[in-house]
Amino acid sequence: MNSFGVVFRISLFGESHGPAIGVVIDGCPPGLSLRTEDFMEDLKRRQSGSRGTTPRREPDLPEILSGVFRDKTTGAPITLITRNSDKISSDYDEFKNIPRPGHADFVSGVKYSGFSDMRGSGHFSGRITWGLVAAGVVAKKIAALSDISAKLISAGGSVNIEEALDKAIASNDTIGGIIECRVKNPPCALGEPFFYSFESAISHMIFSIPAIKGIEFGAGFAAAAMRGSAHNDPFVDSSGRTATNNAGGINGGITNGNEIIFRVVVKPTSSTGTDQTTYNFKEGKMTTLKVKGRHDTCIALRIPVIVEAAAAVAMADLILVDRGIHGVRKV
Amino acid sequence: MNSFGVVFRISLFGESHGPAIGVVIDGCPPGLSLRTEDFMEDLKRRQSGSRGTTPRREPDLPEILSGVFRDKTTGAPITLITRNSDKISSDYDEFKNIPRPGHADFVSGVKYSGFSDMRGSGHFSGRITWGLVAAGVVAKKIAALSDISAKLISAGGSVNIEEALDKAIASNDTIGGIIECRVKNPPCALGEPFFYSFESAISHMIFSIPAIKGIEFGAGFAAAAMRGSAHNDPFVDSSGRTATNNAGGINGGITNGNEIIFRVVVKPTSSTGTDQTTYNFKEGKMTTLKVKGRHDTCIALRIPVIVEAAAAVAMADLILVDRGIHGVRKV
Amino acid sequence: MNSFGVVFRISLFGESHGPAIGVVIDGCPPGLSLRTEDFMEDLKRRQSGSRGTTPRREPDLPEILSGVFRDKTTGAPITLITRNSDKISSDYDEFKNIPRPGHADFVSGVKYSGFSDMRGSGHFSGRITWGLVAAGVVAKKIAALSDISAKLISAGGSVNIEEALDKAIASNDTIGGIIECRVKNPPCALGEPFFYSFESAISHMIFSIPAIKGIEFGAGFAAAAMRGSAHNDPFVDSSGRTATNNAGGINGGITNGNEIIFRVVVKPTSSTGTDQTTYNFKEGKMTTLKVKGRHDTCIALRIPVIVEAAAAVAMADLILVDRGIHGVRKV
Amino acid sequence: MNSFGVVFRISLFGESHGPAIGVVIDGCPPGLSLRTEDFMEDLKRRQSGSRGTTPRREPDLPEILSGVFRDKTTGAPITLITRNSDKISSDYDEFKNIPRPGHADFVSGVKYSGFSDMRGSGHFSGRITWGLVAAGVVAKKIAALSDISAKLISAGGSVNIEEALDKAIASNDTIGGIIECRVKNPPCALGEPFFYSFESAISHMIFSIPAIKGIEFGAGFAAAAMRGSAHNDPFVDSSGRTATNNAGGINGGITNGNEIIFRVVVKPTSSTGTDQTTYNFKEGKMTTLKVKGRHDTCIALRIPVIVEAAAAVAMADLILVDRGIHGVRKV
Repeated sequence: MNSFGVVFRISLFGESHGPAIGVVIDGCPPGLSLRTEDFMEDLKRRQSGSRGTTPRREPDLPEILSGVFRDKTTGAPITLITRNSDKISSDYDEFKNIPRPGHADFVSGVKYSGFSDMRGSGHFSGRITWGLVAAGVVAKKIAALSDISAKLISAGGSVNIEEALDKAIASNDTIGGIIECRVKNPPCALGEPFFYSFESAISHMIFSIPAIKGIEFGAGFAAAAMRGSAHNDPFVDSSGRTATNNAGGINGGITNGNEIIFRVVVKPTSSTGTDQTTYNFKEGKMTTLKVKGRHDTCIALRIPVIVEAAAAVAMADLILVDRGIHGVRKV
Repeated sequence: MNSFGVVFRISLFGESHGPAIGVVIDGCPPGLSLRTEDFMEDLKRRQSGSRGTTPRREPDLPEILSGVFRDKTTGAPITLITRNSDKISSDYDEFKNIPRPGHADFVSGVKYSGFSDMRGSGHFSGRITWGLVAAGVVAKKIAALSDISAKLISAGGSVNIEEALDKAIASNDTIGGIIECRVKNPPCALGEPFFYSFESAISHMIFSIPAIKGIEFGAGFAAAAMRGSAHNDPFVDSSGRTATNNAGGINGGITNGNEIIFRVVVKPTSSTGTDQTTYNFKEGKMTTLKVKGRHDTCIALRIPVIVEAAAAVAMADLILVDRGIHGVRKV
Repeated sequence: MNSFGVVFRISLFGESHGPAIGVVIDGCPPGLSLRTEDFMEDLKRRQSGSRGTTPRREPDLPEILSGVFRDKTTGAPITLITRNSDKISSDYDEFKNIPRPGHADFVSGVKYSGFSDMRGSGHFSGRITWGLVAAGVVAKKIAALSDISAKLISAGGSVNIEEALDKAIASNDTIGGIIECRVKNPPCALGEPFFYSFESAISHMIFSIPAIKGIEFGAGFAAAAMRGSAHNDPFVDSSGRTATNNAGGINGGITNGNEIIFRVVVKPTSSTGTDQTTYNFKEGKMTTLKVKGRHDTCIALRIPVIVEAAAAVAMADLILVDRGIHGVRKV
Repeated sequence: MNSFGVVFRISLFGESHGPAIGVVIDGCPPGLSLRTEDFMEDLKRRQSGSRGTTPRREPDLPEILSGVFRDKTTGAPITLITRNSDKISSDYDEFKNIPRPGHADFVSGVKYSGFSDMRGSGHFSGRITWGLVAAGVVAKKIAALSDISAKLISAGGSVNIEEALDKAIASNDTIGGIIECRVKNPPCALGEPFFYSFESAISHMIFSIPAIKGIEFGAGFAAAAMRGSAHNDPFVDSSGRTATNNAGGINGGITNGNEIIFRVVVKPTSSTGTDQTTYNFKEGKMTTLKVKGRHDTCIALRIPVIVEAAAAVAMADLILVDRGIHGVRKV
């Protein structure tokens, strides 16, 4: 089930240490301008390299295998890949014996009956999100009238992100964070109730991103403590603009034209530098595990661009579905 | 897009004041015992009638139109309907002119170009969840080895739910709440990464329930303030049992066999008894709206069984997809 | 898998002797005029009653359960049902022991592990096509610029259909036939290569109609004996009109704007009045079966309107998918 | 819509003269043996090189980009590509002005608003079936208990295929043919009525192959001239074996365990060596077109292996869907 979308469909593939990773993008309208350079900025943001992330590497620019001709999309499926390099496969069999706590090692072993490629976490690696970010670049062109922007608003429980990083690095541990995504100038009327509501589509995509454990729209969990009279967003003009935005721009599963706002929580990177007491499945007893290698102190630093991509892909599909049923709407 | 599921597919239909509401359930294995009485308990929970909800009515027992023979499912699609009755259509045209804040009135007008049936909120009514609860009864039979149980754990920001209701009723206002769902004895290995992860499937369904604005799994948003060393759940035996359960029973988008835990937030009912200042689209000026009729003070009281149904439907589909690809797993 | 369609989705349900049969139609644009009377003509054609078919009954007018308000589609799913009546369930258990040759009795027993409702062939009954014809009425409104028309062009191997019927009735046997469907004024550019070509979509739907065993487009099987120079359809003007139409209006899986032509073969009704020597699964020996009741001498007489419906549903979906990806095309 | 399948899903991509062509195969069970050499035989058959086809080239062995580890499928999506080489892009713009009769030139121009890559027919090239044949190799492993075999049974209207080729080559023209596919030892109970019947799934896939214009199962079009008493296949033993096989192994859309038989018609290659009078869209007048280059006299020679692949892919998906709903069936 490595595909998403009704009309605008993406399919991710690849493993961390396999020959290549990539994505097929189907249902993309023809005539959109698309060049390799278009992917640079977003792929770079995903790579990061800043403090709290793994050392900087190149942004893995895509090779366009299909669907683009003379720098324009053709209407045929767009395939983007990038080769894996610098892969040093350590003794991944160790993770079969002592699956890392918080990782997919244990479940992938059960799910795939021991046949998964576990090198570098294989298909479960965060590296696979490369294709999602690449698809996001295309999706953003479909949702071009909107501005989709996500950023890390807290880390380790603190809005002072630099300080939180300092502490985590000092203690050789990892921290999570909260990312907020805002879509300015969104189309009104996106979302298909009951089962492809705007929130359903967004959350479906968002929970495909490794390490995300929660999402809330508008006032979100805070709404539980609000009165209806305070939570309701009264309309103030004929465009449907509201005085407040506790709904995060969505009523009844459909965008109302106001800014879309949602937040997601990223759990702390499970590969911490500290010792962990866990089970050795081979020896049948508890053991101490120390995960080697250099890892992200705060993987959440690299996730905003992935959140944007997930949102863009969901929006692009909803835009095309809506246009299919209702025709081109007047702006 | 009123359908959900890859193999186990449900399609909801109906409007609040139309002739009937219902659901078609496709991909259900044959031979499951199914009688009208089986729906009684869950449909009753949805109806509620307790303090803080609208006055008690009958549980709208389903008429089984297809897919069941001699009290067993046949493998053909199961269709369940219930007739709408006691529907008093007030002047719904008013809501075209003065769309209720927090409601779907405005967006449904835009989305469906003014053709929606707005009586009693039409297809956007919470009443349409009847079909989801009914489908949940069938889905729970597919996920029969697991115990899916949701309950309201706070209302109006307080764990003392009775007190919160008292205050809200006294102020003629409405409150939201938080519902926690736990699945005991879940199958291990449910979920299909990347794009049909366990969290993706659950959240896709959950956000089809009106009024839900957030979801979190395991430690959820609290994970943002945790260290990796504390968040990781170490394994303690060969079954994959973990000492803690911050992951909510899910690693890498796949269930790990531990209890599944998630929480959802229900916003306060938008139909409050208080006056609201909002826009009159017909007259082109601000106005005061007082929503008439009797409404739920705390709709969250009635939603636990709907959350269970949503989870059961998502799980049933994931179970059948997993069985299709991997065959019957040894328990 | 009782549903079809990407954007315009239909789901059939019901059994021949169950309480009701019907269809849910999702993804239908709002604002289309729709009244119960609109279904009369097509449902009547399906019922037939003419010589060579079962005695005339009422056309089973639909009850509209959802999706229509003030005689217009609302954009919410449209549900249509009709009650089954006059059902006399004969000893259907006999067909478990001696499955009728050419019928679904044997396979439905295996497929559904003995749980199918076999009364009147249950979900395999031709009666279930009622919902398809009803959906066709809606689909024809979406494809309103085109004229979809199917007719029986031969029966029992003869273009003199009356004569063929005479002979078959005289010998107390049944005959098949060939139905030709033509779509005048079709949209150009319908069809999505590779896997949702125009022919793929049409044939997928057509083979859902019981008793159909073949389909050919344009010159069809005759093309095997043609030279390329004769089969190619040269263009003659700037609209894409071709001098001949061996392609049946489809090139590369996409409609070219010329008339769409396809033919389907309907096998002879399997319920013949003659004795059949077949296997008695209960007694474990060969036996003679005489199928009781009154049956269609030539079921093909009633199928043209079902073929039209199947084509209309496939076209409606392709129209909405194309509009989603490409926007509204200039005619 | 370049994907097919409910559980076993394939997505084709690529253009004739683009960098590479390929396929993503999702939903494949883990643990199947898969090596590059496994593709050799089927890809070679597709390439042909025999008389009546274009000169022999290498079989374009696949590069496995993902989903395989230590020569076993992992359960993650399998991606196979092959690079395009020896591509000499002639003046493809000519085909925009004078679209070749019988080709997709005209419709692809309309469909994709002039943005298609028309070099070597782009995404409409028969070359794209490479990925389908490759997917067929994997699908055959899922349907491993069955033997799927297709062959050309007539060409140019004659069962003496060599003679037909001689004549066509002599006249510098092209011919079509009829291919018969037989599946020995098929699973019983494959197919999901109403809308994913065995015939629906097979025909959906088959009509994705360029140049195919018709399909018939069992007696097929000949059934139109048969009596019911002759067409019915009586059962002869407790396994469901039938004395005749006019149904082609399928009743009510479900396989009955007898040999599956279907035939498809391949139209003559549209690129003939003869002059064609057709329309010049640029100059707005009729013109004479002579298609240059070396082409297949009888493309049908190369299609049997593609038909097998299409059938295998459809069967693999139906097998996994059936197993999902019904569990593992006893053989």
